[in-house]
Amino acid sequence: MKLWGGNFKSDSNNKLNSFNSSLPIDIKLYKYDITGSRAHVKMLAAQDIISEKDKDLILDGLTIVENKIEQAIKNGDYLNYDAEDIHSLVEELLTEEIGPIAGKMHTGRSRNDQVALDIKLYLKDKINNIQDLLKTAIITLAEIAENETETLMPGYTHLQAAQPITLGHHLLAYAWKLKRDYDKLADTYNRHNLSPLGAGALAGSSFPLDREMVADELNFAGITENSLDTVSDRDFILDFHSSAVNIIIHLSSLAEEIITWNSPNYNFIEISDAMSTGSSIMPQKKNPDVAELIRGKSGRILGNHTALATSLKGLPLAYNKDLQEDKEGLFDTVDNLFEILNILPDFLKSISFNRDKLEKATYNGYLNATELADYLAKKGLPFRLAHQVSGRTVNYALENNIQLFEIEIEKFQEILDKVIKSSQANNLKIIIDNELYSWLDLKNAVKKRKLPGGPAPEQVKKQIINLQNLFK
Amino acid sequence: MKLWGGNFKSDSNNKLNSFNSSLPIDIKLYKYDITGSRAHVKMLAAQDIISEKDKDLILDGLTIVENKIEQAIKNGDYLNYDAEDIHSLVEELLTEEIGPIAGKMHTGRSRNDQVALDIKLYLKDKINNIQDLLKTAIITLAEIAENETETLMPGYTHLQAAQPITLGHHLLAYAWKLKRDYDKLADTYNRHNLSPLGAGALAGSSFPLDREMVADELNFAGITENSLDTVSDRDFILDFHSSAVNIIIHLSSLAEEIITWNSPNYNFIEISDAMSTGSSIMPQKKNPDVAELIRGKSGRILGNHTALATSLKGLPLAYNKDLQEDKEGLFDTVDNLFEILNILPDFLKSISFNRDKLEKATYNGYLNATELADYLAKKGLPFRLAHQVSGRTVNYALENNIQLFEIEIEKFQEILDKVIKSSQANNLKIIIDNELYSWLDLKNAVKKRKLPGGPAPEQVKKQIINLQNLFK
Amino acid sequence: MKLWGGNFKSDSNNKLNSFNSSLPIDIKLYKYDITGSRAHVKMLAAQDIISEKDKDLILDGLTIVENKIEQAIKNGDYLNYDAEDIHSLVEELLTEEIGPIAGKMHTGRSRNDQVALDIKLYLKDKINNIQDLLKTAIITLAEIAENETETLMPGYTHLQAAQPITLGHHLLAYAWKLKRDYDKLADTYNRHNLSPLGAGALAGSSFPLDREMVADELNFAGITENSLDTVSDRDFILDFHSSAVNIIIHLSSLAEEIITWNSPNYNFIEISDAMSTGSSIMPQKKNPDVAELIRGKSGRILGNHTALATSLKGLPLAYNKDLQEDKEGLFDTVDNLFEILNILPDFLKSISFNRDKLEKATYNGYLNATELADYLAKKGLPFRLAHQVSGRTVNYALENNIQLFEIEIEKFQEILDKVIKSSQANNLKIIIDNELYSWLDLKNAVKKRKLPGGPAPEQVKKQIINLQNLFK
Amino acid sequence: MKLWGGNFKSDSNNKLNSFNSSLPIDIKLYKYDITGSRAHVKMLAAQDIISEKDKDLILDGLTIVENKIEQAIKNGDYLNYDAEDIHSLVEELLTEEIGPIAGKMHTGRSRNDQVALDIKLYLKDKINNIQDLLKTAIITLAEIAENETETLMPGYTHLQAAQPITLGHHLLAYAWKLKRDYDKLADTYNRHNLSPLGAGALAGSSFPLDREMVADELNFAGITENSLDTVSDRDFILDFHSSAVNIIIHLSSLAEEIITWNSPNYNFIEISDAMSTGSSIMPQKKNPDVAELIRGKSGRILGNHTALATSLKGLPLAYNKDLQEDKEGLFDTVDNLFEILNILPDFLKSISFNRDKLEKATYNGYLNATELADYLAKKGLPFRLAHQVSGRTVNYALENNIQLFEIEIEKFQEILDKVIKSSQANNLKIIIDNELYSWLDLKNAVKKRKLPGGPAPEQVKKQIINLQNLFK
Repeated sequence: MKLWGGNFKSDSNNKLNSFNSSLPIDIKLYKYDITGSRAHVKMLAAQDIISEKDKDLILDGLTIVENKIEQAIKNGDYLNYDAEDIHSLVEELLTEEIGPIAGKMHTGRSRNDQVALDIKLYLKDKINNIQDLLKTAIITLAEIAENETETLMPGYTHLQAAQPITLGHHLLAYAWKLKRDYDKLADTYNRHNLSPLGAGALAGSSFPLDREMVADELNFAGITENSLDTVSDRDFILDFHSSAVNIIIHLSSLAEEIITWNSPNYNFIEISDAMSTGSSIMPQKKNPDVAELIRGKSGRILGNHTALATSLKGLPLAYNKDLQEDKEGLFDTVDNLFEILNILPDFLKSISFNRDKLEKATYNGYLNATELADYLAKKGLPFRLAHQVSGRTVNYALENNIQLFEIEIEKFQEILDKVIKSSQANNLKIIIDNELYSWLDLKNAVKKRKLPGGPAPEQVKKQIINLQNLFK
Repeated sequence: MKLWGGNFKSDSNNKLNSFNSSLPIDIKLYKYDITGSRAHVKMLAAQDIISEKDKDLILDGLTIVENKIEQAIKNGDYLNYDAEDIHSLVEELLTEEIGPIAGKMHTGRSRNDQVALDIKLYLKDKINNIQDLLKTAIITLAEIAENETETLMPGYTHLQAAQPITLGHHLLAYAWKLKRDYDKLADTYNRHNLSPLGAGALAGSSFPLDREMVADELNFAGITENSLDTVSDRDFILDFHSSAVNIIIHLSSLAEEIITWNSPNYNFIEISDAMSTGSSIMPQKKNPDVAELIRGKSGRILGNHTALATSLKGLPLAYNKDLQEDKEGLFDTVDNLFEILNILPDFLKSISFNRDKLEKATYNGYLNATELADYLAKKGLPFRLAHQVSGRTVNYALENNIQLFEIEIEKFQEILDKVIKSSQANNLKIIIDNELYSWLDLKNAVKKRKLPGGPAPEQVKKQIINLQNLFK
Repeated sequence: MKLWGGNFKSDSNNKLNSFNSSLPIDIKLYKYDITGSRAHVKMLAAQDIISEKDKDLILDGLTIVENKIEQAIKNGDYLNYDAEDIHSLVEELLTEEIGPIAGKMHTGRSRNDQVALDIKLYLKDKINNIQDLLKTAIITLAEIAENETETLMPGYTHLQAAQPITLGHHLLAYAWKLKRDYDKLADTYNRHNLSPLGAGALAGSSFPLDREMVADELNFAGITENSLDTVSDRDFILDFHSSAVNIIIHLSSLAEEIITWNSPNYNFIEISDAMSTGSSIMPQKKNPDVAELIRGKSGRILGNHTALATSLKGLPLAYNKDLQEDKEGLFDTVDNLFEILNILPDFLKSISFNRDKLEKATYNGYLNATELADYLAKKGLPFRLAHQVSGRTVNYALENNIQLFEIEIEKFQEILDKVIKSSQANNLKIIIDNELYSWLDLKNAVKKRKLPGGPAPEQVKKQIINLQNLFK
Repeated sequence: MKLWGGNFKSDSNNKLNSFNSSLPIDIKLYKYDITGSRAHVKMLAAQDIISEKDKDLILDGLTIVENKIEQAIKNGDYLNYDAEDIHSLVEELLTEEIGPIAGKMHTGRSRNDQVALDIKLYLKDKINNIQDLLKTAIITLAEIAENETETLMPGYTHLQAAQPITLGHHLLAYAWKLKRDYDKLADTYNRHNLSPLGAGALAGSSFPLDREMVADELNFAGITENSLDTVSDRDFILDFHSSAVNIIIHLSSLAEEIITWNSPNYNFIEISDAMSTGSSIMPQKKNPDVAELIRGKSGRILGNHTALATSLKGLPLAYNKDLQEDKEGLFDTVDNLFEILNILPDFLKSISFNRDKLEKATYNGYLNATELADYLAKKGLPFRLAHQVSGRTVNYALENNIQLFEIEIEKFQEILDKVIKSSQANNLKIIIDNELYSWLDLKNAVKKRKLPGGPAPEQVKKQIINLQNLFK
């Protein structure tokens, strides 16, 4: 059935019908479409545009229709419907149930404002779900970090071991990234939480609709302000895509690290058998497929953002059929985020950390070189010179294949004096004492890094409490 | 000068220096870099990490350095500096001024948290500027709309004339789109308004820095919560790109419409000579170059978003040099938005509307067909049947090459009766009366569309007031 | 069934199985997978790696398996298989048929080279199909153009009427664009027409496989040269995406023009009812949905390119699970191109051109201004001065609301003399004669533009012949 | 100076001039613009459209202009020119030199075909240069590989050690990837090697131009076939972007591996001091900045592709000002590829390989498990069962913390027998003999993988010869 055609003399081409149909995609919206229709019909009755009797008839009919579609989806039969889209399907099925009175449901409404409403209802729902999943991921990271607040590991920059940190601190970095994503989703939700219904095809309606009543019924914070803007607007989808991009970029980094840590050369972690996969040809391997797939899915999620932005570019007001292309990418991104965030906590919990390897790696690479420089700076040496002293000392240690704490105090002093001499700062007088060795101890070094946001165990514990408090 | 090298035995390769240098790009940040250093140095003194005397020396030196760099940029000389980046350059110039004491400025700080700070300061500034420019654009649209609240024009869907609207209403659709962009920028600003300084290279610092003091000094709302997250985070840029994408997508639509309306077949507008360009070979043409360039710039701004997201994908914690690629695209997007939003109000004001053409176009295409259907629906005919009657009536009018209001009342009734007969609703009894003709009057039709957000002049005036109130 | 697991002590997590499974996607490859296995098995026998008897058993079994899967897809049952991917499914079903001998099929092969083979076979097939569809589109454009070689219309730049052309010439512009796409696909096909089989998991095989024999059997031009490159390479998909982007960008322009030409203000064309759609609320409209959808689909096709490139970024050698993300976007782009190119010729043929409107539009906008300049240039006036004379003459015509050919010869001369006087070229002596009026005739003007590639009817006819000859 | 304006009554707005000007960008094209003008002017004279004398005057003038612009660029003065674009600038400077005769240069030409020509000439040149740089990179990889044909290392899939390969083989994988890029550039060059000149503004010319002569003079293989297509076509840039994307994706992988190999946990390589950078705060670090920057630049190069495709989407024929946005991204991609490919060979040569670490890593992870399976398969065991035996044997070795070659033959047989028993293949009789141990030797294992394209030293040597022969 088509909702149009009164002015058409010949039937649609079959290819057109198939090319044009969005039902295989937008069937996903059926619950939201019916929810929206219920609110619309109640308002029509409240405004005396339709009778109470017709309203009741329609509402009862919609319940039957909802069940029918639900069944059809379960059975995989829904593709046999030949309706053009979900809106036509619902009206068609309703007409089957209650006759031409069904036609009154569409009074004062167009598919243009209706589809905007459906997608907004869908998106509000999904944003809430994804926020819940993010919350679980954040809490999971915090729980795991709780056991690792004292676990020493190398902090990396340029994938070079740089300074000692704690594993808990490292894991929480991702919790804070996901927390930002959570907040971005909240902002996206709030900015777009305005009901489009009543915008009509593009120019509102001459019926005395009560737009606010519909908005209230559907838990919107208000109504949109310009009907042309409303039916052409897809910012709510684009903004959701943008939030999704941030999430997947963050998770791609986490995945990258898990993959690296799982490689035999790192061997920082082991993923449980239940969350690994094997090779059809190499029996000894345990592959971190989950992490690789998450990393790989960064592509499609960015691609879906690019896709919608490109489709929207240069469209004139108000509705254009190009907008039909908005849904498939949205559903794809939502479904993939669900899959990813659904498996993520289990996957994270399936990882066991080889603490000894992590600690051992920390002692490989002079990660206390900064501490040496800081010690000297604290003694009054300008930081640039302190940095030079530290660099030369590392060179000396490398040549002699020893750790910094194995160097004698006289050697430190000797290097320091040379650097001062060759600088313009040769009136400086700095004496190195035994306290230096406590600076060079890595566990000490981490504990000293106790600024807010720092890797010291006490700060990591504070971060965990801060995160947990956010969701209380 | 390099800020590192103590551990290096051979000099850098020349190609490396040139490949690696970011100075030609990040020189743009010099003011923000120095502002950040001032706040850091004040805090160092307040925390007794450096002396008051050293602080004063450094602050005075920084003022001289700031002026020097400003001059160098003016003269185009800055490319002669051989510093690696803006941070090195400032320290190098400061050392020239005040000697090795300059080296104390970097105490407890790394280029990793410093560059995050610089970009955040830059971005806070630019977001405010762009919000101001958006505000001007919105107000300009509202001012122009104020003169066109009664100007009849066709509202389009599928670029087909659909329903009568007012030009004011059409223009305001863009004002509301830009208003959303304004709000999105505000959300972006607020989510990221946390000071990164104190995150150090990746692991904070063992110096007793006062991160909150620096944050206050620089008008941040607080500090970031995890040092590894802080130095690896570029969400603030990605989110800005996302806001910029929305802006340019909206403007690409506005530009598309201006180009179309300026084409001789539409002839809805004229762009003043001062804002048009000509052809090197076709002397009769006046080209809407401004609109075309705006539309074309959608590419680069989306591309810059794609670029950063791609660069960020799969990076491990914490800082990686890949992040150096964050700035050029950011500056490009900022500069282009500035250019666009700077010329936009003048360009919009340079357009004069051919009101008679707009009104004439409204009468071309049976734009009152919906009114006919609405009239019948109000009389009690289910909307689907009303739509059929209207469709057949349009067909009749087309065949006879007349307007709907030229059809006699008996003909309307005849078509209506036929449709009712062929439907299952043949117990319906609807009599068409003369009131129909007032529905078919287009100016009337627009006035009736007076729902909140609708095109009726009274609603357009309300929209204008609403917009103006937002910025009071 | 899993093809691995000998080293695993616990079963896979259910979420993992669902997250990891690619069967719902790669089932599309079943024919190519089986084709590849046939060639591999024949070679194994030819090389005495398996017996002739085993080979026959396997080949017979594969035929049964192929039919079974075909049925399962038809019935929609295939989702009930719990295999991990299409390769596992085929082996599992084969084992059901012929027992553990089925396991010999995988000798010397890995899923890593197998999936590369499957996709290449799929892509070779689809590229050929798409080339055929492009050919049909090109020939259709040429056929339509054949009737319009003399149809006058305005040529546009900046959507401003610029110079007179013929409709046939305009349509053929798209034929040549699609011709480039055809050639690009051919290049893509040829560059990647090398068999990957024998690359194994990543390091080839120690079995004496005959890679060339398999390549011959499967119509490849040769074999790949490095096993690590082979299993990590997805350039063939990326290059296909790039070809698809060009196609859809070209079609988005064609679609844009059809939409514009179909708008009532242009009214250059009518699309048949069978290829238009209507509005659920505005009965008078005929919407160019096909064109809008084609234009809208530019997004997803560019997005799919972005997606794969992003997924590939930064992957180490050799195979990574991220590559599993390569297929869904590929299938989506292929399916959408098929849909688009399948409907395109019918859609183009459904368009009728309003020749009188096209010609009338040509006379609206002084499209012969260039001819005036060219006439003067031919008389010896430097082109810049000729351009000035023409511009001033257009101004004169505009002020007097007349066409250029309505201006008297003395007026032309007067303007010319003034321009010469005010230039440094005042020793020039040029006399305007009556021949000018034949230059100003638009039909004449088009006929004169008879350079190769020009809009003159004789050249358009040549273009048509050239296009038709390409596919003979 | 503007090349238009005869029909304009008021001067351009200053903002417009600045917004509209492309000179700061397209000045880069000056040499190509002048080269194109030379060819055009020679043709004009050969066709008697201008005199020989005028031709000589113009050609001499162009030489002076070329030198002037070259100087201005060197001095950084060129920004003081107030011309709209490079085409206007050249004509303006020529007019300064030779007076109004300069105006004859533009006869029969438009900026629309001229700019297409300029970019094509630029691109032909740059493609050749980039091909040369790719060639050098390939040869460099081959040279380095030549010393590593026998260097054992682990081959990875999923970043898990999988099978033993040789370092030479690994490096050559990238050579073959770059070879494909080389070929793709060649295809791009050839498909677009057609001269656009003579397409005029959009509709060719009525002057008797000899398009073929210009094409010959400029080393094109022929001329374009449709003037509207010609001035609207930017496929040659889009295709170049696509080639660039492939290059940078390949290099991002190589960079990723270098970064990973350089991390202390791998320690497979050392980058020379001259090609590393240090930290401003951590004196012990040597960062692989070159690799990180290359990886990071994947973003901008993909972004530039996205940008152009988006700008092109939905543009009507023929020329639109949006196309002016084509150049900045192109120049950016070309410049960055130059920088990258220029430093790449030096960077690669600066890397020294820790062969002992590579070999040691190969023995860590049962990389001969596949060999065990292959041995059994060769003995007649179906591969799936062989895979099971191998998996269980690895488990046994893991539990006992021994290497596979340390297991006694009886143990192998025992595991084998159990697997056979539990399968349906229990009539099989396979006896394991001492030959197995030679299969388990990793150096042997690699040597056995001697299929074409395999990692065996003899095959790696062949690959090197094949690569070298390509460029002879």
